Amino acid sequence: MSGPTTSPHPTPTPVHPAWLPDATIAPLGTGHALLLTARDETAADPVLATVETELRRAARAHGGRLSTRTDGEPGPDVRLVLATTAVHPQPLPGDAAATEHAWHALVRRVLADPGTLPPESFRLVRDAGVTVVAASSGTGLLHGLHHVARDAAARPGRAAEDTAVTDEVRSPAQAVRMLDHWDNVDVHDVMGQVERGYAGGSLFFADGALRDDLGRAEEYARLLGSIGINRVGLNNVNVHAREARLLTEGLPDVVRLAAVFRPHGIRVHLSVSFAAPMTVGGLPTADPLDPGVQRWWADVTAHVYRAVPDFGGYVVKADSEGQPGPFAYGRDHADGANLLARALAPFGGTVFWRAFVYDHHQDWRDRSTDRARAAHDHFAPLDGRFDENVVLQVKHGPLDFQTREAVSPVIAAMPRTRLAVELQVTQEYTGQQRHACYLAPWWREILDLRPWGEGPTVADVAIGDGPGGRPGALVAVSNVGDDPFWTGHPLAQANLYAFGRLAWDPTLAPEAVLDEWVGLTFGADPDVRAGVHAILDDSWRTYESYTAPLGVGFMVTPGSHYGPSVDGYEYSPWGTYHFADRDGIGVDRTRATGTGYTGQYPAPWRDVYEDLATCPDELLLFFHHVPWGHVLHSGSTVVQHVYDTHFAGVERVEEMVGTWAALAGRVPEDVHARVSERLDEQLRSAREWRDQLTTYVFRKCGVPDARGRRIY
Amino acid sequence: MSGPTTSPHPTPTPVHPAWLPDATIAPLGTGHALLLTARDETAADPVLATVETELRRAARAHGGRLSTRTDGEPGPDVRLVLATTAVHPQPLPGDAAATEHAWHALVRRVLADPGTLPPESFRLVRDAGVTVVAASSGTGLLHGLHHVARDAAARPGRAAEDTAVTDEVRSPAQAVRMLDHWDNVDVHDVMGQVERGYAGGSLFFADGALRDDLGRAEEYARLLGSIGINRVGLNNVNVHAREARLLTEGLPDVVRLAAVFRPHGIRVHLSVSFAAPMTVGGLPTADPLDPGVQRWWADVTAHVYRAVPDFGGYVVKADSEGQPGPFAYGRDHADGANLLARALAPFGGTVFWRAFVYDHHQDWRDRSTDRARAAHDHFAPLDGRFDENVVLQVKHGPLDFQTREAVSPVIAAMPRTRLAVELQVTQEYTGQQRHACYLAPWWREILDLRPWGEGPTVADVAIGDGPGGRPGALVAVSNVGDDPFWTGHPLAQANLYAFGRLAWDPTLAPEAVLDEWVGLTFGADPDVRAGVHAILDDSWRTYESYTAPLGVGFMVTPGSHYGPSVDGYEYSPWGTYHFADRDGIGVDRTRATGTGYTGQYPAPWRDVYEDLATCPDELLLFFHHVPWGHVLHSGSTVVQHVYDTHFAGVERVEEMVGTWAALAGRVPEDVHARVSERLDEQLRSAREWRDQLTTYVFRKCGVPDARGRRIY
Repeated sequence: MSGPTTSPHPTPTPVHPAWLPDATIAPLGTGHALLLTARDETAADPVLATVETELRRAARAHGGRLSTRTDGEPGPDVRLVLATTAVHPQPLPGDAAATEHAWHALVRRVLADPGTLPPESFRLVRDAGVTVVAASSGTGLLHGLHHVARDAAARPGRAAEDTAVTDEVRSPAQAVRMLDHWDNVDVHDVMGQVERGYAGGSLFFADGALRDDLGRAEEYARLLGSIGINRVGLNNVNVHAREARLLTEGLPDVVRLAAVFRPHGIRVHLSVSFAAPMTVGGLPTADPLDPGVQRWWADVTAHVYRAVPDFGGYVVKADSEGQPGPFAYGRDHADGANLLARALAPFGGTVFWRAFVYDHHQDWRDRSTDRARAAHDHFAPLDGRFDENVVLQVKHGPLDFQTREAVSPVIAAMPRTRLAVELQVTQEYTGQQRHACYLAPWWREILDLRPWGEGPTVADVAIGDGPGGRPGALVAVSNVGDDPFWTGHPLAQANLYAFGRLAWDPTLAPEAVLDEWVGLTFGADPDVRAGVHAILDDSWRTYESYTAPLGVGFMVTPGSHYGPSVDGYEYSPWGTYHFADRDGIGVDRTRATGTGYTGQYPAPWRDVYEDLATCPDELLLFFHHVPWGHVLHSGSTVVQHVYDTHFAGVERVEEMVGTWAALAGRVPEDVHARVSERLDEQLRSAREWRDQLTTYVFRKCGVPDARGRRIY
Repeated sequence: MSGPTTSPHPTPTPVHPAWLPDATIAPLGTGHALLLTARDETAADPVLATVETELRRAARAHGGRLSTRTDGEPGPDVRLVLATTAVHPQPLPGDAAATEHAWHALVRRVLADPGTLPPESFRLVRDAGVTVVAASSGTGLLHGLHHVARDAAARPGRAAEDTAVTDEVRSPAQAVRMLDHWDNVDVHDVMGQVERGYAGGSLFFADGALRDDLGRAEEYARLLGSIGINRVGLNNVNVHAREARLLTEGLPDVVRLAAVFRPHGIRVHLSVSFAAPMTVGGLPTADPLDPGVQRWWADVTAHVYRAVPDFGGYVVKADSEGQPGPFAYGRDHADGANLLARALAPFGGTVFWRAFVYDHHQDWRDRSTDRARAAHDHFAPLDGRFDENVVLQVKHGPLDFQTREAVSPVIAAMPRTRLAVELQVTQEYTGQQRHACYLAPWWREILDLRPWGEGPTVADVAIGDGPGGRPGALVAVSNVGDDPFWTGHPLAQANLYAFGRLAWDPTLAPEAVLDEWVGLTFGADPDVRAGVHAILDDSWRTYESYTAPLGVGFMVTPGSHYGPSVDGYEYSPWGTYHFADRDGIGVDRTRATGTGYTGQYPAPWRDVYEDLATCPDELLLFFHHVPWGHVLHSGSTVVQHVYDTHFAGVERVEEMVGTWAALAGRVPEDVHARVSERLDEQLRSAREWRDQLTTYVFRKCGVPDARGRRIY
């Protein structure tokens, strides 16, 4: 992974170990560990080899010892046992010996009655200084293994010889935990190699082809496997000509990538173009009701599964921002999605069909058209028409991954449809990995929202505990690239980590997840822990405070989406306006006087948002156009709120800079230097946001800052 | 020139003949013409071959006859004689014959006492149905030849057998009439192959190299020669790595291009990088006072002149928008320019040193810094320090080729310096050849301005009739590319034509020049003539009326500079702001309360611009920040002026569309189709400008349109 090389795609510098430095796996490697698998099991389950590799790596790094089924009598000092349930009722190594060791009895007890252990679950038992992890598959064992490491890192005071008795089964709350890559094979003219990527080039592709050296991708798969991600979309949902052919000529590339992810319990997906029957297949149409088109998808899909038997399925962005789709044939999105679903069904594959459909040639003059309405308008009427292997993938908000927006009403509108909630780990609108912005608190708010006021949360809907009881997914857009720190900003690794952990267990607190991440990544230094918490815990709200106010969104530079441009999208065709004038600002989405968008919500939100008296401050301008002098629940006016939050936001960034500076020498030098450089840019950018926003607002409304601060 | 070909750089479609269709040269080819040159003169003067080619082409196209010195007795029917003064006292063909024809006597009379004829001048004599053009060089004859054709086209009622007696000498007012190409050899990531080019790729370069087939460049040279252009800058003033090497390894390309232009009386120039001693030469410095650097430039320049003996010299953009320059070494621009001038002087070469120097990392918060001041601040103190073969090339306005701005105060500030006034034929800020915008009326205003109130005009300064008496130049950025119509918008050919004609004779009226161009290009149809006049005569003012108002400038989309973005540059580092707020708009450049820019002008303008009572309406917001309700000299308020001009501008474009539609069938079909398509876009864009400007202003100031029109 490091040092100069003569390979055609050399890895330029040593790569940061993220949350898996050797120190992290000490709990797995300081004593004597035993891996117990049944005969012939390893050949059928490649994740078992990964478990063994992890244990060997840990033993090598920390002076411990690993025994396996073929090593004979392990002796009495085994302290950690990882065992598949298939081992029972086969004899244990050492069974024939005179003495029964403590671990023997414990393993026997666990395996004799392991309980129900679905493939990704594990049972963890600790007794008399021995830890046993049992699972029905390599994937379950892998999750257990990382749990043990994580658990130890989270409690640095507690040693491995802890004698407390525990017995628990851990399972993922969410069955499908997916990361989508927006990687292109060819570098795209405008979007580059990774669309909305802020961490260098693709880990998979370089120079218009799959990389020869997939070492980085393998390390990445290890990182994802360690946090429980189990699906990866390999390519950009905006499918260009070259990438459309990953289905056909490019299939050997998919085979190689599937082999990279498979040992970590991860299935791969491809983003496909709805027009592929024409552009790739040479057919005269891509009409989903055309038998030739159906046959083409069936044949192509069978061909894919012959090459990749555990292929996950497709991801599709159709009729969206210029991508082809069923509308061209007068068909709807159920017709479109079911076309692919039926090709995938015989092989157990799933199609993730994105609900991000809107008119991106909107006329800014037309205030009645509302992009926020679009997904609900298009998809809610189709509820019940999607096949069972369709998952409708819904962006968490109705616009586009803003720093703050309402939760999409689609999530509450389709009980007879499997729904995936899509988050964005890559910081497109949240600082592009130049700003420190820990997103878990934002995701926490989204996942916790109860669309019906009481009862299931958004997370429950995704899990399958919503009104329809259909299991969906949690999906996010990845934030990694070939940058040595994976994510450009080293602290942005925390977002990737947190997404995986929240997908596994949506009840986790953001601060607890961050604590885990800091412990794994930086070790036990309490000052580092406190410093990183001080920087990241509130960083999303800090970012919000100096950017677009009160849920109004956008105000970013067109195209790049980085940095302020208050009117940048105000007269554009993209449907993202703030309508500021000398009297007020905001988008009237009420039923009474606006676009009627509030009516897409069930009660109570349809009324909470409709009424100025109950609409939350942080979404005020998302739902209402109000005078600059409108008084918020906070007691401040809108204009004074803009001034106060923007000045305060910059002050908080100044504090972040100081906090990080104080950690010099306590974190690795290269990490410190990179984060320092990013914080400098964050401070510069936050000041620019502050000055542009306050100046823009002052020039519009003419109300001076009550505290007399400098406005230009 | 036309039809499919197997060449590696095929000319894709037939090319429009611009103002030189065969019909135009009928006056040269319907009768018997005689070309008289002295023995051996043709070998030394390649333009004479061009004159002969033109006459042969005309005779072939129109059934006439051409005789030359070697063809023996031409007979009595010669009606057009082109003769060099070197012919006298050699015998004329047919001198030995019995009869002296009418033309004999006339030619003998003219050549016996031709008057003073500098190389580019010609004498035109008409008597008894015979026309004689005499000149001391091929270039003079070529100018005379095109004058004869143009003159006939301008008076379609008058036939060649006109018997009026005339005898006149015609000379260019301006000795240096130059077109700069902003062509790159390699396609630039952002700027493309031709920076600010709106007519396709370069005529010279394709695929990262000089074109194999220079046929289009030859046709272009013919067009330029016909309107009197005598210098061409071959490459972009932003000199990238590849283009910096045109000086050295790329010199064979320059040799080929010089050979293309030479037969049309045109000398070529190269834009060079000030850092070339380092980037090309490998020296450790480019310091203009370093003897090694001076030697490097001397050697390189001598090498260029060995290859291109009539090489014109260099064009330099230094210390501007990221280009290297003398500031890096603590030297000033006189040091920099003289470095190159001294390398060129032994060979008669000239350096054109651009005065476009300003801080493009300005802070928008800082209202005291004024980009408009920059050129005067940098250059006026250097007056008298430039060598005699330096021409300081000054953009006509202090900002950047806006639709309307004040005339640069540098033009009045440097009597001891040769000054070139730089215009922009390419329509960067004036509709990018998608809008019809005839620029000659704008240039006319610029050239006619009297910087000292009375006395010399701007044109006089460029000619050398200013206070210092130093001859300068008129320079413009070309608008052509490999588009079949040369300029994208066929009517934009009129701008190229007009620049050449105004450079030759700055007293020409824009309407008269347009009339010439229409006659040459479209022939004598009076409806076409009237229609094109109706579209173009006021098209610059029309464009002004629907874009940035009252001289405030910019308000264009950042980067592309096409289409409206009122705040696009308002918070940028580029120094181009309008400072609109709810109370008013405009840039205070007064001495009393603003940046002091008005003080850079001599009287009377320093006072005219300073005082609201005398500042012209069309420059009001360039010089003053005023309330929206400020009453203009026109009687309208600023805000009502914005509304009225923007609605009226769109109406005028609607009329243009109708006028052109009525010309269907009266101009070539391909021209009609292309212009129609461009007018459709102009109308769409004009409406967008209108709606964004009126909405922006209304949202800021809240004053309704007095006429109640639709504002969004």
